[in-house]
This record gives sequence, structure tokens and C-alpha cells, in this order.
Amino acid sequence: MNPKTGLLEPLESLSMTDRVENILREYFTENAFKPGDALPNEMEIAQKLNVSRNVVREALSRLRMLGMIEARPRRGMIMAQPDLLAGIEKVLNPFILSKSNQNDIFELRLILEMGIAEFLFARKTPKDLDELEAIVEKQKGLPVLSKEDEIEFHGKLYDMTGNETFQRFQSLLFPVFEHVFATMVTTTEHAAPANPVSHYDLFKILKDGTPEEFRKAMHIHLSVYYNTIRR
Amino acid sequence: MNPKTGLLEPLESLSMTDRVENILREYFTENAFKPGDALPNEMEIAQKLNVSRNVVREALSRLRMLGMIEARPRRGMIMAQPDLLAGIEKVLNPFILSKSNQNDIFELRLILEMGIAEFLFARKTPKDLDELEAIVEKQKGLPVLSKEDEIEFHGKLYDMTGNETFQRFQSLLFPVFEHVFATMVTTTEHAAPANPVSHYDLFKILKDGTPEEFRKAMHIHLSVYYNTIRR
Repeated sequence: MNPKTGLLEPLESLSMTDRVENILREYFTENAFKPGDALPNEMEIAQKLNVSRNVVREALSRLRMLGMIEARPRRGMIMAQPDLLAGIEKVLNPFILSKSNQNDIFELRLILEMGIAEFLFARKTPKDLDELEAIVEKQKGLPVLSKEDEIEFHGKLYDMTGNETFQRFQSLLFPVFEHVFATMVTTTEHAAPANPVSHYDLFKILKDGTPEEFRKAMHIHLSVYYNTIRR
Repeated sequence: MNPKTGLLEPLESLSMTDRVENILREYFTENAFKPGDALPNEMEIAQKLNVSRNVVREALSRLRMLGMIEARPRRGMIMAQPDLLAGIEKVLNPFILSKSNQNDIFELRLILEMGIAEFLFARKTPKDLDELEAIVEKQKGLPVLSKEDEIEFHGKLYDMTGNETFQRFQSLLFPVFEHVFATMVTTTEHAAPANPVSHYDLFKILKDGTPEEFRKAMHIHLSVYYNTIRR
């Protein structure tokens, strides 16, 4: 081996399991495997790829975790419909996420909240508005809103988008968002806006206003957070 | 076993590997493991949990795939900073994603495009605007924009948010977005708006306008897609 190139090789290259996992995913895509299609078994894969069964078992276990494949009694392994957010859900641990990932998540929630207006207006139903009204009426009397009150109101808005992936994604992001903001408020000043927009105001606009008015109001509602954006 | 309750048990319960994986992730969070912290080795874990080493190896392999843990020569396994989007990236295969997941992704891209205005205005630099201008000037003469032209313009906007997770997330969603839209246009009519907003118009507003004007223009720019939203 040439020591010069040896020194410049990546310190961590792909493990055998990484490679088998990648090969299997490519194989499924290239052969247009669909949910329900039977897969070759562990031993066949090991023989074709000339690797140990342990390596194949590990790679398959990873794909099973993502919901891409399933083991069915008497049918062996079949292709499955993956859980889109399974992977992201498992790593959302504030102790191990990088600071920059955590900040990105903080901002991502703000981006999403501003982007949903069209969907809320396109899909709101009288039943939704009644439920939202009950929430804001209950909150109107409170001197200060708890985290649970915030989740109840914003969570209802996420529901109303009719987009389940968005709903789940937002609820995954929320704890990290809260965590990041909590570390910010100890170090920075965050003035409340002169004319704050309440949950009740947002409800009224959603009921009788336009998507544009709603976005404008949501921006003021979230201004405490927007003021933290580094330029 | 009571056959009555037996019949009502879930058909697929958690495998031993699923359970060990869950236990390990909880163990890391509860003990506040941070990147770089050494983990117990495979044999210790197997002994403590009273399971086979194969099961532990599979569970650890899953966590390695997500970037949560790493094997270091002579240091054994350590906690690592996970790759937030690794899991989602691996399952974005249009052959296996459910139709409803694909529709959700289509909408998620629209939500994100509308939500970035504040960040674009807060972070735009003269260099960014010069680069964006070069892109729109080049595109002005074209009779029709290719997918690559679209990606070049919108991709530059994603860059300008300064949010790497958002950038990568959008570029992961784009192929699925295109795939879903391609299946829609064969079945539905999508009228172009009477006064369309071009990439050049969006650039001008980003240069001299306000976030509100930008969102309004972006909504018209994306109206072909917005018209597909089911109510």
C-alpha cells in the first residue's frame, strides 16, 4: 500500500454492513419492488453478495427499523410501506444533536408555522372552527399561557392542515424548539411586540379573514421568536 | 393463554431487537450521554439485558446507521452526533412510500416555500443577490424553464435561508414533489395564473421589497401547484 495515499484516505470508510444496506436499497429501487413483494431470503443474499449471514442480518434489521421491509410468518420477508419519520424521531435527543441542528429545528418550526396559512383556509370546516373557538375562549381568561396551552392551540392548527406528516413532524420538532428557546431567553432580551396578537385574534382571522392577514398576524404572534434569528 | 384475549393481541408485536434498540435509546437519554462518551460494550449489554449478542449487535447496528453511535479503534463504541435526516433520506423511494405520504410531501414543500420569506430578508447578502441575479438573467431569455432551471433558482433561495437542515430537507423532498405533480398533471387541469410571477419578479422583490410582498408573489408563482390542493 502506498503510504502517501494511505494517509489521505478517509479515516472512517463504510463498514461491510453499510455497504450491504446500500446495495439492498439500490436493488429494491432499481427493480421497482413494491409493498407486498417477496424479497430473497437472508441466505440467498449472503451467497450472492459473498458476505456473512451476520452482515446481511444486520443490514436487514436496519431496513426493518425504517419500516421498509417486514417479516411475515410463512411468507418470509416482504417489502413494506416505510414510516417516513421513524428515523428522525429516534435521533431527536437534545443531548446528542449538534447545536447547529438544534438551531435549524428551531427555525424550521417558524418556517412551517408561517407556511400553513393557505392550507388552513382551504381546509377549515365549521367543526374545526368550533373546536378552535372553544380552545381560545378557555384561554382568554388566563393571565399567562402554559406550554400545554400553546401546544393545544398550535396543535389544533396543525390538525387543521389535514396533512398528517406535517402534523407529526411539527409535534416532533416542538420539544427541541422549546429546548432551544429556553437556552436563548437566559442570554438574550426578547421584547414582546407593542400590539401583540393573541390566539383569539388568530382564530378570528382564520374564521373571517384571509390567508394574507393570517400570515401577517402569525408573524407578530411569533415575533418573540423571530427576534432571535441571527442575521 | 386465554384464547379470547389472544385473538385480540396485536398481530405483530415488537421483536427482541426492537425492544433492545428502544431500551438502549432510553438508557442514553436518561443518563444524558453526550457525543464522545464511551458506551458499555456489546457483551456487557447482552449480559445485563440477558439477551443474545446477535440481538445486541443488530440493535447497535441500527443506531450506527442513524449516526447515534460510532465505533472507534481502541476506544470501543462512543456516543456520536446523529445525522438528523439520515433515516428520512433512506426511505424516500416513490415505489414504496404510501400515496398519502407522497401527497403530504408535496404539500410540505409548498408550506416550506411560503414560510422562508422572513429568513431570506433577514439573511440576504449583496453576494447572494448578485448570484441570484445571474441565475434569473440567464433564465429570462428561455422560452420554458427545465427542472434543472427550477432547482437552480429555488435551490439558491434555500441556500440563502442559511439553514442547512432546511436546505437538505427541501432537496430531499424535491424528487418526490416532482413525481407527485407529474402524476397529477395527467389527470387534472392546471390553469396558469393570468398575471404569472417569474423568477425575475421574485428576485426584484427580494432585492427591494418586503417579506409580505415576497410571500404574496411566491404564492402566485406556485399557484399551479396550489390549485391542486384538495379541499
